[in-house]
Amino acid sequence: MTDHKISITRRLRQTPFSKKVFEAGVTSFTVYNHMLLPTVFKSVEEDYHHLKNAVQVWDVACERQVEITGPDSKKLIEMLTPRDLRNLSVDKCLYAPLTNLSGGILNDPVIVQVGENRYWISIADSDVLLWVSGIATGLALDVKISEPDVSILAIQGPLSNKLMQNVFSMNFENMKLFSIVKVPFKDTSFIAARSGFSKQGGFEIYVENEKYAEDMWDAFFEAGKSLNVAAGCPNGIERVEAGLLSYGNDMTIINNPIECGLERFCKKGIDWSTGKVKPFIGDKALNEVLDNGVMQIIRSIEIDGGALPYCMEPWPINYKNKNVGQITSAAFSPDFQTNVALGMISRECWNEGDQVYIQTPVGTRSAIIHEKSFI
Amino acid sequence: MTDHKISITRRLRQTPFSKKVFEAGVTSFTVYNHMLLPTVFKSVEEDYHHLKNAVQVWDVACERQVEITGPDSKKLIEMLTPRDLRNLSVDKCLYAPLTNLSGGILNDPVIVQVGENRYWISIADSDVLLWVSGIATGLALDVKISEPDVSILAIQGPLSNKLMQNVFSMNFENMKLFSIVKVPFKDTSFIAARSGFSKQGGFEIYVENEKYAEDMWDAFFEAGKSLNVAAGCPNGIERVEAGLLSYGNDMTIINNPIECGLERFCKKGIDWSTGKVKPFIGDKALNEVLDNGVMQIIRSIEIDGGALPYCMEPWPINYKNKNVGQITSAAFSPDFQTNVALGMISRECWNEGDQVYIQTPVGTRSAIIHEKSFI
Repeated sequence: MTDHKISITRRLRQTPFSKKVFEAGVTSFTVYNHMLLPTVFKSVEEDYHHLKNAVQVWDVACERQVEITGPDSKKLIEMLTPRDLRNLSVDKCLYAPLTNLSGGILNDPVIVQVGENRYWISIADSDVLLWVSGIATGLALDVKISEPDVSILAIQGPLSNKLMQNVFSMNFENMKLFSIVKVPFKDTSFIAARSGFSKQGGFEIYVENEKYAEDMWDAFFEAGKSLNVAAGCPNGIERVEAGLLSYGNDMTIINNPIECGLERFCKKGIDWSTGKVKPFIGDKALNEVLDNGVMQIIRSIEIDGGALPYCMEPWPINYKNKNVGQITSAAFSPDFQTNVALGMISRECWNEGDQVYIQTPVGTRSAIIHEKSFI
Repeated sequence: MTDHKISITRRLRQTPFSKKVFEAGVTSFTVYNHMLLPTVFKSVEEDYHHLKNAVQVWDVACERQVEITGPDSKKLIEMLTPRDLRNLSVDKCLYAPLTNLSGGILNDPVIVQVGENRYWISIADSDVLLWVSGIATGLALDVKISEPDVSILAIQGPLSNKLMQNVFSMNFENMKLFSIVKVPFKDTSFIAARSGFSKQGGFEIYVENEKYAEDMWDAFFEAGKSLNVAAGCPNGIERVEAGLLSYGNDMTIINNPIECGLERFCKKGIDWSTGKVKPFIGDKALNEVLDNGVMQIIRSIEIDGGALPYCMEPWPINYKNKNVGQITSAAFSPDFQTNVALGMISRECWNEGDQVYIQTPVGTRSAIIHEKSFI
């Protein structure tokens, strides 16, 4: 990481949890959906060990919601993603990449059905509100699109079940990934999903109405003293070990979901009413990709040697003296004692065990391709 | 400003000038269109004095271009803005707010006509590419929309005419605001507009093809030695003195252009071909606002007392013990020896000389409304 400061103005929006985050001793931020996202509290390494051993409270309010309501909301939401949404319900949210006409990824949100004709698209870092509003305006759909007053607090780590139980007096042990329950808080209740941007287990609570935010934060810290709870954030090492993709880092609008390893969310869907193939924006382009296969894919990659500098921009990958891709995220893993990375790599060397060379800022390094993530 | 660091990853894109910016000693960044925008080199105050007395080279590549080409491009561009675009030509770009169906501002770009059926929207901080693509997809328009390899280098300051002349061997003295010329460079030429985010005079050069970026940067520094040229960036003091609005800071999607003082760009336009009122997205909503007038407007505001802390989030404005608006940008001006600010203020106290009270992080301060900017 460089030593450059961030200039915080209103344009980099604070969240309803920001006051608590500052008090908890955040030292670094990134910007995500025009909003502050903490990146470091003690150090990336200390935060990493704590996340893997205890439980953390994360201000991920920057995962903004795009709310769609109105008679045409179901029609619109279906149109936005290649994913078959027949399993979407008020009890189950779905990870669903959004595509443009060319099949390029515009975002990889989680879609939540809040009620009948009411959806939240819980977004990664791009202005989905503008995309969805553009489509709805162009098609003159009968929908209302807005950014509601909803801010996600994530509870992540192996002790997250226990912490959730302490706070809400409910048992969360048997909740499946992406299932949803309502958790009671004061005079209201919130949607809580089994989800989050780590592989340590956890939940995301959709705190509706900012007036509850600080009390909710405090409730977790009071109930978590014996669990060694701490403020945390998506961790740059753990998420690479876990192979969790970051939109804007590992994939961009020029990538289709198939080459990002998201083929399982791009089945040619069936229309709920007619039984026919579900039409969506980009279906022609993606069907072609599905038929022909892809030329590159995102893989986990292990880079030899000592700890590398922070990966601030793509590092070229070479194979037989030819460029075959790029590393987009990398970190030295304390647990694996090697550099773990994610990168887009050409089919000629994307198999398990293939050896490639990475042009890092400190010289060329040997690296091995893995078909599965490190954890 | 706080002492928090910025975590730079690929998602916060570097620009073709970033290497030069790092070498020039940048100390702070913000993020703008998912890209790094320098905010401080020496100090905000030193940068301010230098900008007002000499000439600076700014990496504002984050002002990304949204390129629209194809048979329907003119139709689409007309639809996006309330501004009458009949004066748009390859010799003249236009500042043109973009609005949604409700008349809310989505961005306040400069529109450049690059050729016949080829436009660049030079954007502020929101994903206009998604908005325009959504509209075009919904309406099935025959256009191609992309982010071209174009990065703006701005030359700003009282000596900018001289510096431009040194580099391009042309005379720029008589160029009017928003007029365009082509400047020759190596084996190519670039669009240069008389524009920029300061009131010190200057130019924005649309450097097409990143391979020219570093040489262009160097050319200005070589030709500018006798002019005391330095690396700079939009200055948080000067732009508030100048009353230059920052999208995301001083106005957001909930504001219409009229209450942002942009009424002169919202004339009920005339269609080029038919002579009728030009239709645009949000016309009904904005015509209503134009007919009824607005309840609030953005004003320059002078806040009493010593230098205030950095304005990281809106400060409430009170009048007769009632909330009447908010300060959205503020800075202590060395030249005026007072706190200069911008804020949205209710009509009951928006006149020149009206006295209001600001709730700052260090207590309540008296303030005076101004109908004109400080410079």
